[in-house]
Amino acid sequence: MAILVVGSVAFDNLETPSGKRENVLGGAATHFSLAASFFTPVRVVGVVGEDFLPEHEAVLTSKGIDVAGIEHAAGKSFHWTGSYVENLNEAKTLATDLNVFGTFAPKIPDSYLDSEYLFLANIDPVLQLQVRKQLPKVKMVAGDTMNYWIADHRANLEKVLKELDVLLINDGEARMLAGEPNLLRAARKVMEMGPKALVVKHGEYGASAFFCDRSFADTTHITLPFRAPAMPLEEVVDPTGAGDSFAGGFYGYVASQPKLTPAVFRKAMFYGGVMGSFAVERFGTERLQHTTKDEVEERFRLFQEISHLELEA
Amino acid sequence: MAILVVGSVAFDNLETPSGKRENVLGGAATHFSLAASFFTPVRVVGVVGEDFLPEHEAVLTSKGIDVAGIEHAAGKSFHWTGSYVENLNEAKTLATDLNVFGTFAPKIPDSYLDSEYLFLANIDPVLQLQVRKQLPKVKMVAGDTMNYWIADHRANLEKVLKELDVLLINDGEARMLAGEPNLLRAARKVMEMGPKALVVKHGEYGASAFFCDRSFADTTHITLPFRAPAMPLEEVVDPTGAGDSFAGGFYGYVASQPKLTPAVFRKAMFYGGVMGSFAVERFGTERLQHTTKDEVEERFRLFQEISHLELEA
Repeated sequence: MAILVVGSVAFDNLETPSGKRENVLGGAATHFSLAASFFTPVRVVGVVGEDFLPEHEAVLTSKGIDVAGIEHAAGKSFHWTGSYVENLNEAKTLATDLNVFGTFAPKIPDSYLDSEYLFLANIDPVLQLQVRKQLPKVKMVAGDTMNYWIADHRANLEKVLKELDVLLINDGEARMLAGEPNLLRAARKVMEMGPKALVVKHGEYGASAFFCDRSFADTTHITLPFRAPAMPLEEVVDPTGAGDSFAGGFYGYVASQPKLTPAVFRKAMFYGGVMGSFAVERFGTERLQHTTKDEVEERFRLFQEISHLELEA
Repeated sequence: MAILVVGSVAFDNLETPSGKRENVLGGAATHFSLAASFFTPVRVVGVVGEDFLPEHEAVLTSKGIDVAGIEHAAGKSFHWTGSYVENLNEAKTLATDLNVFGTFAPKIPDSYLDSEYLFLANIDPVLQLQVRKQLPKVKMVAGDTMNYWIADHRANLEKVLKELDVLLINDGEARMLAGEPNLLRAARKVMEMGPKALVVKHGEYGASAFFCDRSFADTTHITLPFRAPAMPLEEVVDPTGAGDSFAGGFYGYVASQPKLTPAVFRKAMFYGGVMGSFAVERFGTERLQHTTKDEVEERFRLFQEISHLELEA
């Protein structure tokens, strides 16, 4: 089934230990869409400026991604400048130019209204909620957020959390949101705020899923947490979009399956890790643009291999 | 088969968010031995002072641990004072009183000379090497070290590394030893220094195993890395000894098996995580003293459950 994703489509200036790049296509919705497109149809809601050219649109449309919901506005696209030179595990934001994103008011094309899966990428919770309210019939809602919204836009964020089936954030965000250093206790507190499942991304150490004691979607109760591995990588060229690509792989797989069972959730965690591991191998969207479905399946098997207890000797 | 472990038997003063304890039995050899004793006979080589009473010895002997190699010297036992109040993931050393450990010269009892498995716990590499040389017939050698020896006793440590089949250290130590931030590349560099396998402990995120391209023990080549999960715990009372308990569970299981196969190595990683997860639930050795074999097997199954891809729905 199709996923509707709302979020940023942007250009990034990036500096990592592997080099520098300017005006690279990026944004949470872009990374998410590319990763999810390997599994299911994707529809994007976002806004771009006059610098978003046909060649950029083609990066999405060549993967079958529906761009009818990308509004073209006068001015420049959202632009982010970040550096990973000091720490490959944490982006240092050097500049954020919202440009056309500063007045973004998401509009849902009629052709998107039957979307059953909604992903609220990391944007202002007010916008996340606006989109949610325009899609009363969605079957499942997943979303992301970040420290900025947790710290300074808490009341709005709490309204979004009540709408979520699955929240995908990283360790630091989970601990900050709960005000609790212990991850298991933090996860419970976060789920009391609304999400029925919480996926916590641990960067190079994989990801954990936690489940509340209410059922959601077609799933009966899952109570045990789940740990998915990450692939030890020889070289991380650019971590930008790793989390969005994880979310895209995760949610894309979920949406591709007839029913959300515990096994589907677990496989989705693995596919999330797979897509995140591809994303960081090149700058921007470069690697995901050139990844094949065969490579995805091959890496999925590798993830299984490196974490499966019973290995044939 | 019996494991001979050489390392510290000590008393600790501990401060954690859960409280304070004084003169708690500790030391790397103590934690290692208790964890390994669930799987295989263990023989300890170490030194204690006059404050090491029959009640302390009974903690070890009640688990069948052979203490013939624990020398009783005049003076006080090794004493460590540490705090985890600021950061539960990293011990802050407040005081280290070597006492009788300062002049420790390991002596191997004749009854230990047939030991096939040797574990060199985290002590001066000079002592690790002395013990290794006294046991020319051991079948497998595993060991640990720490930042202090890596930084200031490198030449001696390098001699020890050449003797190791398996080195068990944490992320920071692996990166420091290799001078390389990327874990996969760091692992390769470390294995070039001697160890045929490297187990890197990630604390609450589990552990990774890396293998060189030479075979060791009865194992044919294993080349893929392996990721084992950790158990998300509600409460970590005292992290002291978690790494030693991991090593004890890991190596104890290895030594209990007729042959080191890839599957045995993987299960050993899980048992390491299991023993580490018990160790931190109470102060000092308290939890491991009162753990049953049934609890160990139950938690092993839980580790399998939380990381196994195919879950019965």
